[in-house]
Amino acid sequence: MQRQDKGLAWMLQYENIAWYEDGAVRILDRRVYPIEVRKVECRTHREVAEAIRDMVTQSAGPYVAASMGMALAAYECRGKSEEEQLEYLKDAAYTISHARPTTTWRMQKVTESCIEEAKRLFAGELRGDVSDALREFAIEQNNERYSRIGKVGHHLATLFPEHGAVMTQCFGETIVGMMLREAKSQGKEIRLFCPETRPYFQGSRLTASVACDMGYDVTVITDNMPAAVMKNEGIDIFTSAADVITGDGHVINKVGTYQIAICAKYHGVPYYVTGSPDKGHPSIDSVEIEMRDPALVLSAMGTPTANQDVKGYYPAFDITPPSLVTGVVTDQGIFAPDGLSAYDYGPGEFLV
Amino acid sequence: MQRQDKGLAWMLQYENIAWYEDGAVRILDRRVYPIEVRKVECRTHREVAEAIRDMVTQSAGPYVAASMGMALAAYECRGKSEEEQLEYLKDAAYTISHARPTTTWRMQKVTESCIEEAKRLFAGELRGDVSDALREFAIEQNNERYSRIGKVGHHLATLFPEHGAVMTQCFGETIVGMMLREAKSQGKEIRLFCPETRPYFQGSRLTASVACDMGYDVTVITDNMPAAVMKNEGIDIFTSAADVITGDGHVINKVGTYQIAICAKYHGVPYYVTGSPDKGHPSIDSVEIEMRDPALVLSAMGTPTANQDVKGYYPAFDITPPSLVTGVVTDQGIFAPDGLSAYDYGPGEFLV
Repeated sequence: MQRQDKGLAWMLQYENIAWYEDGAVRILDRRVYPIEVRKVECRTHREVAEAIRDMVTQSAGPYVAASMGMALAAYECRGKSEEEQLEYLKDAAYTISHARPTTTWRMQKVTESCIEEAKRLFAGELRGDVSDALREFAIEQNNERYSRIGKVGHHLATLFPEHGAVMTQCFGETIVGMMLREAKSQGKEIRLFCPETRPYFQGSRLTASVACDMGYDVTVITDNMPAAVMKNEGIDIFTSAADVITGDGHVINKVGTYQIAICAKYHGVPYYVTGSPDKGHPSIDSVEIEMRDPALVLSAMGTPTANQDVKGYYPAFDITPPSLVTGVVTDQGIFAPDGLSAYDYGPGEFLV
Repeated sequence: MQRQDKGLAWMLQYENIAWYEDGAVRILDRRVYPIEVRKVECRTHREVAEAIRDMVTQSAGPYVAASMGMALAAYECRGKSEEEQLEYLKDAAYTISHARPTTTWRMQKVTESCIEEAKRLFAGELRGDVSDALREFAIEQNNERYSRIGKVGHHLATLFPEHGAVMTQCFGETIVGMMLREAKSQGKEIRLFCPETRPYFQGSRLTASVACDMGYDVTVITDNMPAAVMKNEGIDIFTSAADVITGDGHVINKVGTYQIAICAKYHGVPYYVTGSPDKGHPSIDSVEIEMRDPALVLSAMGTPTANQDVKGYYPAFDITPPSLVTGVVTDQGIFAPDGLSAYDYGPGEFLV
C-alpha cells in the first residue's frame, strides 16, 4: 500500500481537491486515495457532474468541483454572445447541482453564485477571461469556506476533554482536518476511533489516514463495532459532518450516522454534528435521500462478497432526528438542534 | 464468482462441515465459501484446533470439527496403551477446546463426551477401532444437535408474521437453515435482510447465500445500515444465534449483535436469540471475550483498506444485555432472558 506522506496539508489544497486549468477540471479520486493517488480529468462540465455523481470527490469536495466545473463551462461557451454564455452557464449550473439529489440546494447556491460572478464580469466590474475569473472566484469561495470551517473546528475542539476518545463517521474532509488541528492547538490529547464506512471505506481510507498523518492515535473499526467500542473502550464524543442539516434539526449524513447516534444516546455519549442549517430545507420534508447502485454493497474493494442472486440496498444517507443530536456545531457557535432558528443566515451561508 | 448450487442440503451435511477419515480431518473452508469451495485438511488434532482458531469453520461447525478432531487424536495415539490413549485424548480435548476462549465451556463438554465414549469402548461396551467409533459418535451427536436445532427453528418460525421481514446477524449455520425450512413449512412469507458482517462477510457470503439457495427474497446490507433499514423498510423481527447465552440472559455473539439489538429496541423491533443457556456460564462474569488479530479489520477480501500506521481493533464478540433481548428461543420453547433458570438441563445440554 502506497503511503501518502503529504497528508492533510496536501489534501486541503483546492488545487488537489479539484482544479480548473486549460479546458479541464482535474479532481482527486477519493475512491482510491490514499492507496492510490490519481486524478480524474473532466473535459466538460457534464463530466464534472458525472464525477460528482460517481463519488470521485465528496464531503466539501463536490462544492469545489462545482465551482471549478462552472469555470470549465465558461471555457466551453467562450466566443458565444454574453446572453448565450449566461444561458449556457445556467444549464451547466442545473446539470452540476443535480448530480446528487440530497445536496442539490447547496449545489444550486454554489453554482448560482458563479453565475452572479459571471454577470458582474459582463457588466464590466471584472476583467479578463470568464473561465479564469471563475477559477479565481472558486478559490476565494473556498478560502471563505475554510475560514468558516476553521471556526467550526475551533468550537468543536472546545467540547473535547483534555484526554479522551472521539468517534468519527465517514469522512468530513475539511472539518476533520480543522477539528484535529484545533484539538492540537488547544492541547487536547485525543484518541480517534474511525468506523470504516462501507461500502467505500471512507472512514478507514480517508479519515483515519488524515488523522494518522497528523500524528494522532487512530483505531479503525468495522461498522458493526461502534456500540461495543462505546461500551468497552469509552468514547467521550461522537461527531460527524452532515450533507444536510435541516432547520428543524434533522441530520442527513452518510448511512450509519443514525445508528451510531442511537448507540451514543444509549451509552450517554453526546453527538455533535458540524455544519450549518440549510436555509433551503427548513424541515426534513423537502429532503430527498439518494439511493445509490445496490450492487455496491455486494462487493468490497472490487471483490464480490455475495451470491449473484441476492439483492443489495444502498441509501447513501440516513436521517438522524433532533432527539439524538446533542448540538449543532456551526461557525457561529453551538446550537441546540431545536434552536437553529437563531442561526444568522447571511452571504455565503451555504459554504459551511 | 462460482455459484454453489447444492445449497443448504449440502452445507448441513456433517460430511462437508468436518469429516474424519484415513488419518485426517477435512473441514469446509467457510472463509471463502461459497465464492470458493475448498477444504482445509488437518493431519493432527493440533491442526484441527488451529483451523478452529483461524475460523475455517464457525457457528456449530467447530463442535463438529472438535468431535472429528477427537477421532483424529484417537488415530494419532493408536497402538499406545489404553491409559496412554486416554491421556493423549485428554490433552487433545484441552487443545481443541481452548482454540477460542469464548466458547471453551461448550467445546470442553463436546470433547469430554468423546473421551467418555472412548472409555466405554475400552470398557468393552463398544467394538472396533477407537477413531472410527469416535467418528460414529460425532455423527450421532450431530444428528442429535440437528434434531434439537430443528425444534429451535420451529419455535422461532412461529414468531414470524405471515408476511414480513426478518433481520439476521452473521451466520448461524444450522439454525439459519432450520429457521428457513420451518418458515417455509409454516407458510410464512419472509423477506430477509442480512447485514454483511465485517470483517469476514459471513452475512453476505453465507447467510444470504443459504437463504437465496432456499428461494427466499434476500437483501444484503452493509453493517452501518440496520437502523436505517428498520426505519425505512420495516423489520418485524431481529434474530441471531449466539456463541454463549449466559444463565442470566446475556447474549455473546458476533460483534455487531449488540448494536443491532440497541437499534431494534429503539425501533420497537423484537430481538429473539436462538440457542440454550450455557450451564457453564451462570452469569456474564465467567465469559471471556476473544480479541482477534486487529489487522483483520484493516483489509477487506484481502485488499488493504487503511494506511499501514493506523491501528485496528477486533473483538470477535460483543455482549447484549438481557434488557435488549425479547426472548431466548430454545429447543424447549421460548424463555424470557430473566427466566432461563426454568430451562431443563439434561444430557446433551451443550448441543444447542
